[in-house]
Amino acid sequence: MLTLYSFGPMANSLKPMLTLFEKFEHGRDFEVHRLNPAQFEHHSDWYKAIHPRGQVPALADRGRVVTESTVICEYLEDEHPTEVVLRPADSFDRAQMRVWTKWVDEYFCWCVSTIGWHRGISHMAKALSDEAFEEHLKNIPIPEQQVKWRRAREGFPQDLLDEEMRKIAVSVRRLDDQLADNEWLAGGLYSLADICNFAIANRMQVGFAELVNGEDTPHLVRWIEQINERPAVKQMLATIPSERLGPPPEESRKEPAPA
Amino acid sequence: MLTLYSFGPMANSLKPMLTLFEKFEHGRDFEVHRLNPAQFEHHSDWYKAIHPRGQVPALADRGRVVTESTVICEYLEDEHPTEVVLRPADSFDRAQMRVWTKWVDEYFCWCVSTIGWHRGISHMAKALSDEAFEEHLKNIPIPEQQVKWRRAREGFPQDLLDEEMRKIAVSVRRLDDQLADNEWLAGGLYSLADICNFAIANRMQVGFAELVNGEDTPHLVRWIEQINERPAVKQMLATIPSERLGPPPEESRKEPAPA
Repeated sequence: MLTLYSFGPMANSLKPMLTLFEKFEHGRDFEVHRLNPAQFEHHSDWYKAIHPRGQVPALADRGRVVTESTVICEYLEDEHPTEVVLRPADSFDRAQMRVWTKWVDEYFCWCVSTIGWHRGISHMAKALSDEAFEEHLKNIPIPEQQVKWRRAREGFPQDLLDEEMRKIAVSVRRLDDQLADNEWLAGGLYSLADICNFAIANRMQVGFAELVNGEDTPHLVRWIEQINERPAVKQMLATIPSERLGPPPEESRKEPAPA
Repeated sequence: MLTLYSFGPMANSLKPMLTLFEKFEHGRDFEVHRLNPAQFEHHSDWYKAIHPRGQVPALADRGRVVTESTVICEYLEDEHPTEVVLRPADSFDRAQMRVWTKWVDEYFCWCVSTIGWHRGISHMAKALSDEAFEEHLKNIPIPEQQVKWRRAREGFPQDLLDEEMRKIAVSVRRLDDQLADNEWLAGGLYSLADICNFAIANRMQVGFAELVNGEDTPHLVRWIEQINERPAVKQMLATIPSERLGPPPEESRKEPAPA
């Protein structure tokens, strides 16, 4: 039995989770151990005994732990090939797939992540007392993550947020251009390139509706909807709960949700 | 015949170049088309017809172009397997290799690159007239690269340089710790993990001697020297010239080289 340690089906956690749902039977071949980000469970001692860097997702397979979401996806194809093939057989197409998964990890995920933190995590960070916050920071093994939490609590500078929004606009333009002439991102088949980009792009029609909509990015919207129709995606979303990381309900009532 | 478009044997250009020298015979199986960074040849129209993003390295293989240094390395293993195997056969070990190549691309190479630009490229950028510089910027397809050139000309802010030096210290500590108990970075064999990290770490004993030296990082120094003893590395360095991107000679005479 494979065990995926992750948050709910979004962002980096979604990548290996959807790969598992595409390839295997949930409950028989794999299970999802969902950590609670609101309780900082990924920074707890029990989890850091599994992954010392305190990051999700991580995959445990017969006593060995594989980390890094994109690496886990390729590992599943390497170690557990099934009838569902999520990597092109042709080397050149496979290279194109890797250019797209690499691009997610180095560009697309970061700009979306910062805005996600600004809108969601910052509420969690601000809700803590100074003492509880500093106590929490001590449990984070990666210095850059400590800085990100501190920024989330203090508020991200506006020029950084503007720059990230510029990069998001560049990103969705790039995806839409590629998907205008291609059903899938690489190699003519639904692959890890699609899964890893979908992990970030899904629900941007809601959260970034000014950028991702039927008029400006029709091909990207078509592709997001097409992936949402897949049985594996429906099963994943019906089985594994998503987190709600926005402002708490009372705050939502006071002010409109951020654009 | 494979053609690698690249700069000289350092940084990202070194990764696929060394992979080629390890696996194939130079002049028979592959050639290196070296671009001149001092003439901004990678931003020229002829090269952008090959790689529209104007970045090196790129590999041309029977009319198809593979980009991104790490992706090219895996492509060579996928498409052109030889007796020299640079990826672990075991899936878990291969995943560890990918964690290390990913780490180079997302962390280690960036901090070293900024300091390299500060010490080297900035001299090139400052030597241009305002007009020539703005003309050059127009040829750069990637907005973030335009920003980097502008910063190189204006001078990188000191707090950014300090932060990058902190990350470099973290990086070499991490490498030394891993190499203390392991001859190679992943899977018990010389692999793409070693090649991709060596591409950035080689010559840090000279350029970053305060961090990389026999006392502070003996295992990292041992590993760098061990890789330099490989016939493929010796042949590569003897065959493909390196650039000299530091200050021009007259400036070197005026002031000591940067630490």
